[in-house]
Amino acid sequence: MSIRIGILGYGNLGRGVECAIKHSPDMELKAVFTRRNPETVTILTKDANVYSIDEAEKMADEIDVMILCGGSATDLPVQTPKFAKLFNTIDSFDTHAKIPEHFSAVDTASKEGNKVSIISVGWDPGMFSLNRLYADSILPNGADYTFWGKGVSQGHSDAIRRVEGVKDGKQYTIPKEEALEAVRSGNNPALTTRQKHLRECFVVAEEGADKAKIEETIKTMPNYFDEYDTIVHFISEEELKRDHSGIPHGGFVIRSGKTGWNDEHNHIIEYSLKLDSNPEFTSSVLVAYARAAYRLSKEGQSGCKTVFDIAPAYLSPKTGEEIRAHLL
Amino acid sequence: MSIRIGILGYGNLGRGVECAIKHSPDMELKAVFTRRNPETVTILTKDANVYSIDEAEKMADEIDVMILCGGSATDLPVQTPKFAKLFNTIDSFDTHAKIPEHFSAVDTASKEGNKVSIISVGWDPGMFSLNRLYADSILPNGADYTFWGKGVSQGHSDAIRRVEGVKDGKQYTIPKEEALEAVRSGNNPALTTRQKHLRECFVVAEEGADKAKIEETIKTMPNYFDEYDTIVHFISEEELKRDHSGIPHGGFVIRSGKTGWNDEHNHIIEYSLKLDSNPEFTSSVLVAYARAAYRLSKEGQSGCKTVFDIAPAYLSPKTGEEIRAHLL
Repeated sequence: MSIRIGILGYGNLGRGVECAIKHSPDMELKAVFTRRNPETVTILTKDANVYSIDEAEKMADEIDVMILCGGSATDLPVQTPKFAKLFNTIDSFDTHAKIPEHFSAVDTASKEGNKVSIISVGWDPGMFSLNRLYADSILPNGADYTFWGKGVSQGHSDAIRRVEGVKDGKQYTIPKEEALEAVRSGNNPALTTRQKHLRECFVVAEEGADKAKIEETIKTMPNYFDEYDTIVHFISEEELKRDHSGIPHGGFVIRSGKTGWNDEHNHIIEYSLKLDSNPEFTSSVLVAYARAAYRLSKEGQSGCKTVFDIAPAYLSPKTGEEIRAHLL
Repeated sequence: MSIRIGILGYGNLGRGVECAIKHSPDMELKAVFTRRNPETVTILTKDANVYSIDEAEKMADEIDVMILCGGSATDLPVQTPKFAKLFNTIDSFDTHAKIPEHFSAVDTASKEGNKVSIISVGWDPGMFSLNRLYADSILPNGADYTFWGKGVSQGHSDAIRRVEGVKDGKQYTIPKEEALEAVRSGNNPALTTRQKHLRECFVVAEEGADKAKIEETIKTMPNYFDEYDTIVHFISEEELKRDHSGIPHGGFVIRSGKTGWNDEHNHIIEYSLKLDSNPEFTSSVLVAYARAAYRLSKEGQSGCKTVFDIAPAYLSPKTGEEIRAHLL
């Protein structure tokens, strides 16, 4: 029997989950739940239905795992605890500072409903976190470095678009090659924010806008740009559409650590991602962890988990024998 | 209370384990067990003892986890099942083809003794296996590639030394840069053995030996060199000692996979290691998994496990709260 998946929220992430399920022979998309009028939402999967989010509670017996595809700012803090009582859930909650609080709320709800929830799944938090943990455990005498990019930052692109005189814009976060090389050298350099990443902006100005002022406003914007070297390019709306409509991302987690009785040997562990589509990759991780949530729930477990708590074998549709014979 | 570790076999790997324990505040080295005369073995840790391997059975109550540091060819197939009845054990069994058989023997023994054993721990098998599994689970529509090196292959170095007229030698396995680039391009190339790795040999010839014949013998040696591009350098014994006495290694696990409704997006996941000391890094992984074996045993689990079965949180000395707050 297939694992029956529900998608709650049908934006880029929800569509990515739908695509990932297509590549998972042990899963089927049962339903998509939306806050919009369901009649206005067209999905790709022929034999799945679209329902109003208000219908979700009634379908607890028909969905094995609900994948919550809302945003971390306002959706997930409310939705995950609410639905974790009724369903095994997966979310991609990524407000790092608020993870302990979110964990606690979801844990209470999941235990109340005797369900399994896995929060903060994706690549950061998610695969990058796993790599930080593994490397920290193996090379305790070391330091780790996370770099993001090259990729589109939604938050920074939104910040550009709020500047007066800006019609549209995209921001790329780019790790600095010198910083990556310094880390890979094993010298455990202390790096400032400015030394680690560069911010490159492609901006479409309103007609007649003061470009010099726009550039200055962007470059000095607190929290978003002031601590970085920022490059601003003005381009046409057409160019923005043609050259910058993708959502690529990626990054690097590098740990440099020493071993030996007198710390005489150095080691570098590096994990990197180069992603054509940030939401589709994130969705692919969510779907693998949905498989784990389903299995843990079948074993009688309950409560909130993170990627740290999930044995890797639970992610694979293959059996223990198969993975020992072919992947070990 | 510290986790009390025993080391069985005190070669490069055993010494590496001893060094890794020094960096693990929650562990102590209790004893080293050797097949040699214990009086001839000097260890680095002041407050640990050296015993004959025959004494090990009597110390079941004093050792929480026994780390088996013997070789995969003849030691571990006998030692791990034997000691898995008496101790929680960790080994680095790396004969890939015989893992299912070894797993089965160790599983029976561990269950009989109500102990936890984790086999095939290290970096390949080990961290590389984990990365193959994670990537295969996240991007099922893709292909994975493992490259080894640049590093010293013990087996190939031994093979060189058996050639007539060879006094000493070292062999480096080197991944070909063109192959790495082809894989990173996302084209899922089919690569032959020759296209993936280069073999570079540094050979000290006996005085008066026929160097041309040695070179020919090495380059055409079945299984070891005949399917590779092999470079042979003749150097002096002094040069070999000066420039090639280290045991560096490393490698790459790269997965390239597609997502999207029509497979329109490509993604590259890459994990790489650059190790100054192969045995010390392997040992560091063994010690992290010893922590996991201890904890699983305390929870009442038993039987044989691999890295696939261990939730990452068990490897870290930090608490769940700490890792969620700082590493997630």
